Amino acid sequence: MVHPRVYEALSQPVVGHLDPYFFAIMSEIEESLKLIYGTTEGITMVISGTGSAGMEASLANFLEPGRKFAVLANGYFCDRISEMGRRQEAQVVRFEKPWGATFEDQEAAEFIRREKPSLVAYVHAETSTGALQRGDRICAAAHEVGALVVADCVTSLGAMPVNADQTGIDIAYSCTQKGLSCPPGLSPMFLSPKAVAWLNQRTSSPRSWYLDLKLIRDYTTTSHRYHHTAPISMFYGLHQALAVILEEGPKSRWNRHLHCHQAFVDGIEAMGLAMHVPEGHRIPTLNTVVVPSGIDDAKVRARLLAQAGIEISGGFGPLAGKVFRVGVMGPLATEANLEFLLREFHRALAAEGYKS
Amino acid sequence: MVHPRVYEALSQPVVGHLDPYFFAIMSEIEESLKLIYGTTEGITMVISGTGSAGMEASLANFLEPGRKFAVLANGYFCDRISEMGRRQEAQVVRFEKPWGATFEDQEAAEFIRREKPSLVAYVHAETSTGALQRGDRICAAAHEVGALVVADCVTSLGAMPVNADQTGIDIAYSCTQKGLSCPPGLSPMFLSPKAVAWLNQRTSSPRSWYLDLKLIRDYTTTSHRYHHTAPISMFYGLHQALAVILEEGPKSRWNRHLHCHQAFVDGIEAMGLAMHVPEGHRIPTLNTVVVPSGIDDAKVRARLLAQAGIEISGGFGPLAGKVFRVGVMGPLATEANLEFLLREFHRALAAEGYKS
Repeated sequence: MVHPRVYEALSQPVVGHLDPYFFAIMSEIEESLKLIYGTTEGITMVISGTGSAGMEASLANFLEPGRKFAVLANGYFCDRISEMGRRQEAQVVRFEKPWGATFEDQEAAEFIRREKPSLVAYVHAETSTGALQRGDRICAAAHEVGALVVADCVTSLGAMPVNADQTGIDIAYSCTQKGLSCPPGLSPMFLSPKAVAWLNQRTSSPRSWYLDLKLIRDYTTTSHRYHHTAPISMFYGLHQALAVILEEGPKSRWNRHLHCHQAFVDGIEAMGLAMHVPEGHRIPTLNTVVVPSGIDDAKVRARLLAQAGIEISGGFGPLAGKVFRVGVMGPLATEANLEFLLREFHRALAAEGYKS
Repeated sequence: MVHPRVYEALSQPVVGHLDPYFFAIMSEIEESLKLIYGTTEGITMVISGTGSAGMEASLANFLEPGRKFAVLANGYFCDRISEMGRRQEAQVVRFEKPWGATFEDQEAAEFIRREKPSLVAYVHAETSTGALQRGDRICAAAHEVGALVVADCVTSLGAMPVNADQTGIDIAYSCTQKGLSCPPGLSPMFLSPKAVAWLNQRTSSPRSWYLDLKLIRDYTTTSHRYHHTAPISMFYGLHQALAVILEEGPKSRWNRHLHCHQAFVDGIEAMGLAMHVPEGHRIPTLNTVVVPSGIDDAKVRARLLAQAGIEISGGFGPLAGKVFRVGVMGPLATEANLEFLLREFHRALAAEGYKS
């Protein structure tokens, strides 16, 4: 759900892509993103494309053909990262776990020490499974072997702490339409000082010109030299979405999401249902609920949409038909909405034959 | 300038990126773009990035490492195309002309027959110079040697006919913020049946996953299988911008631009000034005027902005300080606006010492 102020911002008159007003907006966006990403040491920037463009920018800029790229693979977006790595002709090595599982500190560190890659990727919050991955030991192990770490924060940024500096992340990307409660269209990124230094020392040109981070940063921040014509309206929207978040305060926002998540889990368990991901490894804003045996998840979802106008998602890939995926985030994450959701979800399940 | 209806569309509530309503909007956009591109045989699609993303999509999908790529180079964007071609590791060969010159049928055909490339690129309307390039003989010569042709229509689409089928173009891309009078953020593309067939036969994966046209088309049009999360709001805006254009009627719109262009040239010549591009090779909507000797173009532009709120551009690269670049397009291209522009332009020039 998008705040009305964000919609209003989207419809404001555009200025030119080299207008000082646009660069002022951009600069405020970058500063706000530092608070949301949890960095005082690194830099933030915004890519003129959706979350997947941020993913591709991360790999196109920090991989070169033949380099070893280690992926901690436990869901759909890890597969996408792997595929993009192959298209950069990196040597992709994967540590695979079932969808919804997470990586323990020790096993992740052993994998990285054994493979000695130059880039490691993990997904902080996997939209396809609801699993949250701790990153600090992954980052520490990667730094031991001289690797940089890229973290997919598509579903976490803005909804929960990323703590980029503290975790040791070098490169992160996200989207605008999840934790930031803005329409899709931009990809906010984070780079650590080490990542910036690596980029500055890189002598080969990235395969993508459109996603060349050095050229983009030069345009948006350093010299303001024309690179591409930024989608001004989307930047207006993101600027306002960040203002809304900072007004509530990041900590209040994280706590609101955590509180709603706990209430959701309590309600689900009170119905006799089970969460797909073990406690302590769950994304607060994207809840995966096991579909009870004998119940057709698509029918429940269709009924919920028809009876209450509530849209929840199903699982896909190995989790097709096995989980409901329920987003509880942004302006929608309130106690009143949650009560309504749980009541209607139970009603739809019961109508499809579920007995708790 | 953007029509108020487009701004209003941008602020409408977003739907999901797999919502049937979004695909209905997308389908109407594709049909409208066929009229604007001038095709009944080819297909149109829209890239979730700005004009430069469309440029990169064209090269990433239709080039492979080692293939010969011939560029007709007469301005800034031809250089960008060449650079992107090199990043695809194509063998880039260039036929270079001074900025503002155009290619004659015979010399362009000879270049293509001699080089026998697999892809040829030219810029239909060069924003940096104001020069319009005819494409029919380029396309005919390219097809003789089995090459496909990509045309940069960033400054032409929506403002003047592209006639993709009739010209013989295989791949074209544009932006939304020029001839389509919409904020920047998307890149509308055209593919001929021959280009589609080439793509379908391609066995290697494009280096860009985000700009992989086969995957994008599968998402937007064919199976609706998730690729990326499309920037819904921008699609609402483009949908409305195309509706505004079709209501006026493409022919009326081209004629209005042509009429204003002719009136602009008459006014400029009446002031004793000269156009940079010879008659018959000019873009109707992007006029380049030679800066008279002894006049500082930056001072004239600053004065025009301060005295009348009119922003015109200067030249860059080899044309820095040598031309004014004056856009006369979209809702701004009216007789009344033109009279105001010419009067104020003359006043600013005179104040900076110009005597006609």
